[in-house]
Amino acid sequence: MAATKVDIRPGTYYDSVVLMQLQRALADLPGLLDAGVVMGTAANKDLLAQSDLLPAEAEVAKADDLLVVVKAEDGLTAQAALGQVDDLLSRRRSGTQIDQDYLPQSLEAAVQMLPEANWVLISVPGRYAAGVARDALRLGKHVFLYSDNVSLEDEIELKHAAADKGLLLMGPDCGTAIVGGAGLGFANRVRRGAIGLVGASGTGLQQVTSRIHQLGGGISHALGTGGRDLSEAVGAVTARQGLDLLGRDPGTTVIALISKPPAPKVADDLLRLARKAGKPVVIDFIGYRPGQYVHNQNGVHFATTLEETAELAVKLLDGPARPARDQVDPVLARFAPGQRYLRGLFSGGTLAYEALLILQDYLPAVYSNAPLDKTFALPNALVSQEHTIVDLGDDELTVGRLHPMIDNNLRLQRLQQEADDPAVATILLDVVLGYGAHPDPAGELAPAIAEARDRAAKAGRYLDVVAVVVGTDDDPQNMGDQIQKLKEAGAGVETSNLAAIQAVGARLQALNAAFGLPQVDPKVLQQPLVAINVGLESFTASLAAQDTKVLQVNWRPPAGGDERLMGILARMKGG
Amino acid sequence: MAATKVDIRPGTYYDSVVLMQLQRALADLPGLLDAGVVMGTAANKDLLAQSDLLPAEAEVAKADDLLVVVKAEDGLTAQAALGQVDDLLSRRRSGTQIDQDYLPQSLEAAVQMLPEANWVLISVPGRYAAGVARDALRLGKHVFLYSDNVSLEDEIELKHAAADKGLLLMGPDCGTAIVGGAGLGFANRVRRGAIGLVGASGTGLQQVTSRIHQLGGGISHALGTGGRDLSEAVGAVTARQGLDLLGRDPGTTVIALISKPPAPKVADDLLRLARKAGKPVVIDFIGYRPGQYVHNQNGVHFATTLEETAELAVKLLDGPARPARDQVDPVLARFAPGQRYLRGLFSGGTLAYEALLILQDYLPAVYSNAPLDKTFALPNALVSQEHTIVDLGDDELTVGRLHPMIDNNLRLQRLQQEADDPAVATILLDVVLGYGAHPDPAGELAPAIAEARDRAAKAGRYLDVVAVVVGTDDDPQNMGDQIQKLKEAGAGVETSNLAAIQAVGARLQALNAAFGLPQVDPKVLQQPLVAINVGLESFTASLAAQDTKVLQVNWRPPAGGDERLMGILARMKGG
Repeated sequence: MAATKVDIRPGTYYDSVVLMQLQRALADLPGLLDAGVVMGTAANKDLLAQSDLLPAEAEVAKADDLLVVVKAEDGLTAQAALGQVDDLLSRRRSGTQIDQDYLPQSLEAAVQMLPEANWVLISVPGRYAAGVARDALRLGKHVFLYSDNVSLEDEIELKHAAADKGLLLMGPDCGTAIVGGAGLGFANRVRRGAIGLVGASGTGLQQVTSRIHQLGGGISHALGTGGRDLSEAVGAVTARQGLDLLGRDPGTTVIALISKPPAPKVADDLLRLARKAGKPVVIDFIGYRPGQYVHNQNGVHFATTLEETAELAVKLLDGPARPARDQVDPVLARFAPGQRYLRGLFSGGTLAYEALLILQDYLPAVYSNAPLDKTFALPNALVSQEHTIVDLGDDELTVGRLHPMIDNNLRLQRLQQEADDPAVATILLDVVLGYGAHPDPAGELAPAIAEARDRAAKAGRYLDVVAVVVGTDDDPQNMGDQIQKLKEAGAGVETSNLAAIQAVGARLQALNAAFGLPQVDPKVLQQPLVAINVGLESFTASLAAQDTKVLQVNWRPPAGGDERLMGILARMKGG
Repeated sequence: MAATKVDIRPGTYYDSVVLMQLQRALADLPGLLDAGVVMGTAANKDLLAQSDLLPAEAEVAKADDLLVVVKAEDGLTAQAALGQVDDLLSRRRSGTQIDQDYLPQSLEAAVQMLPEANWVLISVPGRYAAGVARDALRLGKHVFLYSDNVSLEDEIELKHAAADKGLLLMGPDCGTAIVGGAGLGFANRVRRGAIGLVGASGTGLQQVTSRIHQLGGGISHALGTGGRDLSEAVGAVTARQGLDLLGRDPGTTVIALISKPPAPKVADDLLRLARKAGKPVVIDFIGYRPGQYVHNQNGVHFATTLEETAELAVKLLDGPARPARDQVDPVLARFAPGQRYLRGLFSGGTLAYEALLILQDYLPAVYSNAPLDKTFALPNALVSQEHTIVDLGDDELTVGRLHPMIDNNLRLQRLQQEADDPAVATILLDVVLGYGAHPDPAGELAPAIAEARDRAAKAGRYLDVVAVVVGTDDDPQNMGDQIQKLKEAGAGVETSNLAAIQAVGARLQALNAAFGLPQVDPKVLQQPLVAINVGLESFTASLAAQDTKVLQVNWRPPAGGDERLMGILARMKGG
């Protein structure tokens, strides 16, 4: 009868490769039916239970405990298998693939052995990883942090520490990178070339670099950032460093930026940086950003699939090395200092909605009473803040009053309110004609626009007003007359919502400046990569196979994994 | 010195046009500085406060109360203005624009006067609107429900009641529609033609119909649905009726569907209906659906801006009247009854993420441990449900174990689990090659695929397995060999994530059937529109100006707006 036996080793650390190999070696023993070797986390125990490998006595194992479960044809065989665990572990140790006479026991020792190392690769378990990264930064090394399960707080602290020292910290949870031709972590072997990439997504970067290679292009560098880099909390420190570095790298002529949907304020910064790169930049904010609204914005090209990103980047290699200079928008020079915000006062809910969508390509952080993202909900629909698009026809504002397509009062009042705000640069309005609508909306709006512009002018400001007129030449209001009245009041007029939003978006984007970080020394991309690897030995083997100089550290958890002792040690190092 | 006076009239109803006109008439009186006439809702009182028109004694006004505030040069003038309110109200009444000898006092009376009316337009305040709509449906009329602030519960009840009777109920909060050339609510005057529209968004529909007209095209009908129709709760009752009606309407050769992002399960149904329309359908799910992934899917075309929707619809007018028939996918015939779900087992987080995005064009309701929409979060990452995409490299699953690009165990186990589920049709895998990754992933995956397919075959099912191989011909694993092994195991292989997902998405979409509603009699679109209008008189004036037969009802709140009495009256009518 089949028997299951369990061995729990509290607080024992082995790296995941060792665990996998032990599991396979056990399962291959004669008479064994199945085996499980894992750290005792809840998820791992669930998995064991699914394979019928979690007897009651195994359930007490904790995340720090090594849990070995064997199922055999009979109890004796199972027990004998457990007896071989130590032997299998030591046998595996002598079969290591690394061609290195002496394994330093610490990062410090490794740096003394290989002082020219400029990178440290870290793939130890998450709860130890931040400590190792801190050590690496203190030693002045760039960091490739493969480990996941690193806290957000640690990530923020590490990235700011790195940036202050002019160092790169890729990750945590950075699966892939290519630096000067050397693939770190998971990386495809690709042709060297002139396309530089920054990727907040591992397999995204791998799919794009692979496709570029398949299409005949090549890669200068591919810098990973880790998946949380483009969150508002982290603020895209690594992506911004990467964009800036690739912009200054003479070996890179086209840049591609790949990321899952970034936080809107972060996207804002990255778009401005991309415009300043002086090279074509392909952006794939996978999915979030419709992208098709703006196909070429001062050298910034949007793609929406990994496939298209690769194709565009390769196509741009043959294009002009520098993007065509934007026509300078003559309106920009007229604004007073401090004028920087857009205020959209819409009567049409869908027009407001589409405006918010299209503006994502220019000004992702736009507040609204009907926002795309709850983060940007206006606390009070009657009061704008920063960039704002209000839907004045929203239910909340039409209780006991007419819709703003019939009754302009609310809009006339709001128009003056916005015009008096010294931070406002542009006011955007829709004017919807047709049956049922106000018989002469421009007749009421145009004088108010003229007055608002006049008041702003007296206060030393230029007030830009753009109106979208929706209607036909057969509408009862006479579309031509309506447009004429608005133009005479000084408003710019468009009949397409898309065209109006694009014009206004580009103008407002140009008004706002991107904020910078200390520059990283471009040598990081030009010097040959020399690495110290702390963690998965297979990464050392991979680098060695790429003829890259690398040193493996025989890392063990500090203080045997004891949290309190680890804290004391870290403080002694000043970490 | 300026003085402000207030008049509060509890429980008094006037329609919003009357309020606006009274406010303007008061403001125009000599000596008056400003005036506010509103129902006393919180939002309206905020607006008065912003204009400095909310003295303390006005703050007690409630949502049901008429609140009149006047500000004048002195107290006497203000008081005198308030004294004129009744006079101004009665003067306005005689100046009505409607050319109608007798105004029926109820919908029932109106129906007796104009029995051939097929539509009832309703624009009374939200809390009365559902009652009027119920009456209209009971009388067998189609309903255009302009009113907003109608509860979701009422909307659901009304739409199901309408559908059961084969009637349309557009709205609530339906701003616009064109039926047989007559514009209802807000509508632009557009050329008649062969493009039929269904729109869950008012000004969206207006922008598109206007642009179609400007581009030389014309409109057969434009059916509004109200903004909540495409929520999961309402289930797109009106949009589905509309798509079906336009599909059967001989005057419509191209259909366009415009909506803010629908609920994913609803989008699923609409996509299937659109494929069955037998006419080209342009879909603009504004923003939500990237759309560019699938440009022409059995006659379904995706647009991403209102502008593009109009352009595409006009272009398709000149195209073939019927969409090209899809090649029938030979795999479809092999599945057993009941096989209908996709299971994606990804090692690459970004590949999984992009899969979810692209699948939105085919199967918007896909569960995941890293879902695009929290509604579709898997309760347990280890157990799939319906369509599922799992990211096996997610942090939660890599604590104390190797990444699935190195260690295939978790995937091998999950593969058998999915294969044994009789509802599974297709399993999708990524195989990521390169440095750092497993030295021979196909060597482990291919036998498992063959075994899974074999087991399914023995159980009478066809198991479709598709693998995306990410890599280059220079990768250490030998990409050609890897592909060969997977193919020999019976898997379909793609090297582009996009191509794989598109193929699988189309296959799974074809496996699932759309669910139907009772059909609406197509006469609703072919007979001339004859309307009864309950609410804003300007809508009657608009219809009359379009030479459409219309009767205005002199509506007043039932039971003087008393909620309890209204309930009793409704029950007496059986409503």
